[in-house]
Amino acid sequence: MQRTDKEGAQPAERIWQDIAAVRSVSPLVHSITNYVVMNNTANAVLAAGASPIMAHAVPEVGDMVALCAATVINIGTLDPLWVEAMKVALRRADALGRPVVLDPVGAGATPYRNQVLGELLAVASPAFIRGNAGEIMTLAGIQVASKGVDSAVSSADSDGAARALSLRTGSVVSVSGPTDVITDGRRIGYVGNGHPMMTRVTGLGCTASALLGAFAAVQPDRFAAAVSAAAFLGVCGELAAAQSAGPGSLQMNLYDVMYNLEEADFVRTARVRIE
Amino acid sequence: MQRTDKEGAQPAERIWQDIAAVRSVSPLVHSITNYVVMNNTANAVLAAGASPIMAHAVPEVGDMVALCAATVINIGTLDPLWVEAMKVALRRADALGRPVVLDPVGAGATPYRNQVLGELLAVASPAFIRGNAGEIMTLAGIQVASKGVDSAVSSADSDGAARALSLRTGSVVSVSGPTDVITDGRRIGYVGNGHPMMTRVTGLGCTASALLGAFAAVQPDRFAAAVSAAAFLGVCGELAAAQSAGPGSLQMNLYDVMYNLEEADFVRTARVRIE
Amino acid sequence: MQRTDKEGAQPAERIWQDIAAVRSVSPLVHSITNYVVMNNTANAVLAAGASPIMAHAVPEVGDMVALCAATVINIGTLDPLWVEAMKVALRRADALGRPVVLDPVGAGATPYRNQVLGELLAVASPAFIRGNAGEIMTLAGIQVASKGVDSAVSSADSDGAARALSLRTGSVVSVSGPTDVITDGRRIGYVGNGHPMMTRVTGLGCTASALLGAFAAVQPDRFAAAVSAAAFLGVCGELAAAQSAGPGSLQMNLYDVMYNLEEADFVRTARVRIE
Repeated sequence: MQRTDKEGAQPAERIWQDIAAVRSVSPLVHSITNYVVMNNTANAVLAAGASPIMAHAVPEVGDMVALCAATVINIGTLDPLWVEAMKVALRRADALGRPVVLDPVGAGATPYRNQVLGELLAVASPAFIRGNAGEIMTLAGIQVASKGVDSAVSSADSDGAARALSLRTGSVVSVSGPTDVITDGRRIGYVGNGHPMMTRVTGLGCTASALLGAFAAVQPDRFAAAVSAAAFLGVCGELAAAQSAGPGSLQMNLYDVMYNLEEADFVRTARVRIE
Repeated sequence: MQRTDKEGAQPAERIWQDIAAVRSVSPLVHSITNYVVMNNTANAVLAAGASPIMAHAVPEVGDMVALCAATVINIGTLDPLWVEAMKVALRRADALGRPVVLDPVGAGATPYRNQVLGELLAVASPAFIRGNAGEIMTLAGIQVASKGVDSAVSSADSDGAARALSLRTGSVVSVSGPTDVITDGRRIGYVGNGHPMMTRVTGLGCTASALLGAFAAVQPDRFAAAVSAAAFLGVCGELAAAQSAGPGSLQMNLYDVMYNLEEADFVRTARVRIE
Repeated sequence: MQRTDKEGAQPAERIWQDIAAVRSVSPLVHSITNYVVMNNTANAVLAAGASPIMAHAVPEVGDMVALCAATVINIGTLDPLWVEAMKVALRRADALGRPVVLDPVGAGATPYRNQVLGELLAVASPAFIRGNAGEIMTLAGIQVASKGVDSAVSSADSDGAARALSLRTGSVVSVSGPTDVITDGRRIGYVGNGHPMMTRVTGLGCTASALLGAFAAVQPDRFAAAVSAAAFLGVCGELAAAQSAGPGSLQMNLYDVMYNLEEADFVRTARVRIE
């Protein structure tokens, strides 16, 4: 943890309060997410101490939004029926003032994805948009060479795009990468934790979005919630990677580390900077 | 294993016969289940020695029921198209006399779930209903404070509800919790095995239902089958937790323990009581 | 590795070139696959060094085919909406000359599955068909006793069926079993690696198909690509099983071994024969 002297500094101690709050409140986090990651994001939400619900049926998705403290919408394996459910959820969350995390998986990969993202953002601005650098730059209107659901650009390139997207949508924008970048258009946060092997486990970006739902449920300052979620996953991933022989054991150890993480280890490991 | 002197006692030795039968018969178990748990419940069924099939398409779901020894219906991520398949499966299983396990995930969480459960129970009474205490109490018509797909009430509160539901539906009712409760309306069984960390792995309740399908396929006494399934998961979970640092390693060790479980360890660990 | 003196011998060194190419090229592999295995096949593709994309929406599935180097179509949890997407994908891949791997999960289990497979093969012959012996014999028109999605016949019985199916469809046919059999109708390859415990992890056949997509993307000789994919999974599975207590740790170790596999270990372990 590199403390800064600036106003708005995010000491690891403050982030730890959010981690502890997720554990004590155990908020219900609703997800409409992709088939690939449903199991591992549910397990991550549980390991962090919160309670996941996955539900997408149009006749109940509005009720699920109302029942839960936050909703995560992830378009990874979207299709027209699911997009309808996403719109119903966004509308209901907007009416109730519930935080929504939008994960624009594969933005830029196909015209259909871009069209759907345009439609979703037209329904209501989500509280959060979390993606990789390529996805965020695509949403910000910058042309990038897409490499499917993985990003071909670095997060360092994306600070300006994130800020522009945040200013346009009013969303807090969180960009995952070697250094995570979080901005509300005014403040900008950097989380330097993580490990390259994390890119070899499917859906850890989706996991970041799911965890953000849990932190948004306990921390009303959206920028702070997004920094906390990124720091929690980055630190846990880094500690888990240090004891893992490969991506299989990394996935398993990640849950164990999330479940057992103690304040001293978190504070010692976190590398967070706020500007 | 605490033997009882009463008539109807379920010694661990009898349960072990069922575990051995699952391994030797390797019955086909058909599931229409939720997206979150398809992978881990299939792996649990395999680790127990049975053969899982997941299929939901209306044009084939009746044939799958006929092909398999038992069918598990789990409404975790239901939607109207899947509910249609569940009804077709229930109707076919009823016509063929095949055992069905109904897992009413999230009963009480939304009006839609309650409506669907009413419709499914109106098609045919399943041989088994397995849920947590809140779900079973909801189905029994008792108002509970739902906490999404997790239960806000203890299984101890639910004995009466389970018995009432069993008497009304004719189903054997199995309630998961710190102590599992199983009843056919007349007999009542308690399984005291398990570990609190199991609630931090997604879908172990769904796993209990999937395993019940495997045991129902080899044990025609439905009450005995439900006791055996609960004891098998409880004992394996307890043994796995003892060697696990957290929920990630618990999920992995659970499969290994199921695969390797030997009679002496099972008998020594099981805590089953029948009244 | 048993080298043969015959023309067309597939030394492990040649296969290693393909493994290295998957890692260095990291091709995009598109899958329309079943819900049960989406997570673990994505993780296997990542651990092998390639990049998975799962997408099935009709409005974008053709674009995904065009974006990716290979497409894998797996009918495990098919339904009419997904079958439509599979047809669109097959048509587009055929038009673009992109390799398609068809995994006919559960062929023979229900009339609907057989009908769908007939319809898919009528759209376009895939570059590859990979299944277990029962599935391949069913597709070849030989009546077999289906045991659901697992095979009730051995791969040794299936050499003739594989050759006949290959000659009829023009596809390279890969049959998984204790010894994998691969044929283009002229050449036939045998891979003797693997471990019986692999049948107790769900979806390792599906994983074989997903990996074949990755190898097809870097090796234009289709027969060679199929031999390489089978050898890679067989060797990694065998090495992983040697350090695993059961199917849970096998699944985890499999990813770690794929990620870390070195040439010397591969060459020492591979048992491949070409005729």
